[in-house]
Formats: sequence, C-alpha cells, structure tokens
Amino acid sequence: MTAPAFILVAPQMGENIGAAARVMANFGLDDLRLVSPRDGWPNPAADTMSAGALPDVVKVQVFERVEDAIADCGLVLATTARPRGMEKPVLGAVEAVARIRMMPKRTAVLFGGERAGLPNEAVALSDAILSFPVARSFASLNLAQAVALVAHGYAEAAASGPPAAFVDMLDAPATRDELIGMMEHFEEELDRAGFFYPEAKRAPMTQNLRNAFTRAGWTAQEVSTFRGAVKALAIGRGKARVKRDD
Amino acid sequence: MTAPAFILVAPQMGENIGAAARVMANFGLDDLRLVSPRDGWPNPAADTMSAGALPDVVKVQVFERVEDAIADCGLVLATTARPRGMEKPVLGAVEAVARIRMMPKRTAVLFGGERAGLPNEAVALSDAILSFPVARSFASLNLAQAVALVAHGYAEAAASGPPAAFVDMLDAPATRDELIGMMEHFEEELDRAGFFYPEAKRAPMTQNLRNAFTRAGWTAQEVSTFRGAVKALAIGRGKARVKRDD
Repeated sequence: MTAPAFILVAPQMGENIGAAARVMANFGLDDLRLVSPRDGWPNPAADTMSAGALPDVVKVQVFERVEDAIADCGLVLATTARPRGMEKPVLGAVEAVARIRMMPKRTAVLFGGERAGLPNEAVALSDAILSFPVARSFASLNLAQAVALVAHGYAEAAASGPPAAFVDMLDAPATRDELIGMMEHFEEELDRAGFFYPEAKRAPMTQNLRNAFTRAGWTAQEVSTFRGAVKALAIGRGKARVKRDD
Repeated sequence: MTAPAFILVAPQMGENIGAAARVMANFGLDDLRLVSPRDGWPNPAADTMSAGALPDVVKVQVFERVEDAIADCGLVLATTARPRGMEKPVLGAVEAVARIRMMPKRTAVLFGGERAGLPNEAVALSDAILSFPVARSFASLNLAQAVALVAHGYAEAAASGPPAAFVDMLDAPATRDELIGMMEHFEEELDRAGFFYPEAKRAPMTQNLRNAFTRAGWTAQEVSTFRGAVKALAIGRGKARVKRDD
C-alpha cells in the first residue's frame, strides 16, 4: 500500500492548487502532480493559500501530459460528477479508497480543472470513475473540495488499520506507462492497417479501445504478451517496423 | 431523520462562508446558520464564492449567540481538530453521520471560525466532538473543507438508504433550547447559593457541568423533572424566584 498521488489536470486558479495542497497535508499526503497548470509553476497564489503546505510539506511535480503524470501508477481513478457514457466502473469514495489501499503499486487520482473538469481522454486512461453523490441540480464541486473528500477518505481508512486483504495477484500489475505503451503500439499498428478511417473516427475509436483496455486490470506479463501478439499480427501482414519500445 | 443544520460560529472570511454554502448545495443541504459573522450579513464575497448557492439554494439565518442558533436542535456536534480535555465522546465522520441520521429531531453541526476554531463554551453545549484524522503536524483544516467533509458524509450515507435503525426512545429527546434552559436554571440557582466562588471558578465549573449535562442525552421529560428538582431545592433553601421559563 502506497499513499496515492493526486493529479490536477489543467488547473486554473492558484488558490485552488494551494487549497488542495493544504488539505493533502492535513491528511498526510504529499505527492501532488500538476498537468499543464494555466498560470505556470511555481505560483505565489498557491503558496499563500496552502497555509505552509507548499513548497515543503507537499511536493509538486509538473507535467505536460496526463500520460507522463501517471506513468508510474498501477491504478488510476478519475474524479468526475458528470456521467461520461464510458464503460467504466463508477466508485464512491469508500470503494475508491479500498481499491487504492489494495494496490501494491503507486496509485493516482485525477481531478479536472475548474472550467470543464477532466477531458474525456484523461478519463479513458483511468481504471474507474470516482464520483460523489452530488445534487443533480447543483453538481459542480470546487476542485479543492473534491481533493479534500478523497484525502479525508484515504486518511480515515488508513487510520482504521491495514486493508482487510491485499489483492492476491500472481503477477505484478502493469504500470500505467506499460499499459499506455501497449495501447500506443496497438493503435500505431491499427493506424498502419487503415483502421482509423475516416479520420473523424480516430478519436472516438481510440477512446473506446482505451476504455476497454484500462478496464481489464492488466498484469505486466499480460501487457508483454499482448504486445507480442500485436507485433506478430503486424509481421503477418508484412507491416511491422522497428519500434522504440521493443 | 432531518437533514442537519450547519452552524458557523464567528466565521471571518466571506469567501469561506460562500464556499461552505456551495458544498452544502452540492450535497443537498440548505440550512446554514451564522453566529456573529465578523463582516456582517449579507456579504458579497460569500455570494460570489457560493457559485449560485446563495441566497436562494441555501438559506442563511444569522444569530448572535450559539445558544439561539441551536435552540431547536435535538443533537449538536462540535467539529474540532484539537483535543479539548473535555469529557465528550469523539466521533469520526461516519459515526457522526450515523448519529445525525438516528435523531428524529433537527440536528446541528458546529464549525469554528478561521482564527481560533470553536470556543470551549460552544463545545460544552454539544453532545459530542466530531474530529477528522488530520496529521498532528498539519492539523488546521480550512473551514469550508471541514464543511465539505461532513456534507459529503451525510449525502453518502443518505444515498445508501434509510438508517439501519432509529433510536428506540420511549420519550422525545429534549431540544437544545430545553436543555440550555435547564442548565441556565440550574446555574442561576447555584449562583444564588454561592456555588461559583471565587468568581474565577465560574467559567471552568460551568463548562464542566455543561459537558456532563450534554453528554447524557436528555429526554424532554427528564429535563422537566430535573427542573422541578432544582426548583424544589431552591424553595427548600428559601431562595426560589419566579423565572420566565417556568
């Protein structure tokens, strides 16, 4: 069990980043990652609102892409209030925290920016959706409030003792880096095979595939096997080429 | 089961009042009470931060004293991070929400202001302390974040269905108004009997008594009986006088 990283995707207001850092520190979490913060980093408004959590109690890393921010993670949860029409399990905070605690590798919780929440592409890279029982007529949670709810849920579960049972996996789970590498490999070969035609279908088809792949809970061994299969298919079609990942 | 009222005691920043109202609306709560807000009421900064929750989705009442704000409540919980050295049960959010849901009368959750948290006098009027598993070295939760944690806890429990069991009380619980009236009556007679001597002992002794009384879960009938007993004692000492509550 490793404490989760919290990842703010395209956050806008430094005040919310600071408030998020403060409540992470309140509940003993220290791994904050920012993807493309609007106002750059560091941000004085964030420091002020953090009440001392920044820059030393909570450590911040900045990334350009979600893929890079979650590369070392074995489980990724996407917080969202809106139904997404994606085939993902939807968890409440208690279930989400239980999943985090059962994962032996680093975990991540994604939070969307103030204006639009998480982009669909980020949700598609996640194992499950974490949702809160908000009123339909007033569903928009403040970013730092959403962070507070997950941080508190984690601390409360941690205070209650070790998780009841670790997942009994024979093989190590794949990191998100390995899984993304596998999906990109697959998509490249599909592309070369003319699968994404017409071009307008590329985004929705990629998203559907990624939703299916991320739902499966791949082990590192399975990722390796699948990549071998894709390669074999491509060679059979005479289209394989050297990939940097191979 | 009635949704709880949230009471902010001496809140300072309008922004925090607005953020508290917003997250109450997120989780379907609408009864916000302010005791002596520093900047008066209404407060434009609160309206702005409420994202539309104020003034219509969440209703605000303003009081001068905690006693008046909790007068109609049958259960009062005090949120505090600091140990208070008071003989009160300390509940986590899950237990606190369970208690709220079991109470057939209105309930209240007290939140302290930004600078100093809840005054001891307000904690002494509460049935129990609601505390969060914060890091000792970074224990100060933002006011609106504390509100968010309780609001979410309530909504999550409510979404899971009706409470497992209502308290099986033969008699109706006393409202806090009745309980405070009883304590004040008792304290007045004690005062007349010279109990609070020397004067420096008045505050700690009153607080100890109130802690003991509020821990007992009085029914309305028991309050009535106790007041009769106090009155009888006072008459026996020849010191009874007409009280407005009698």
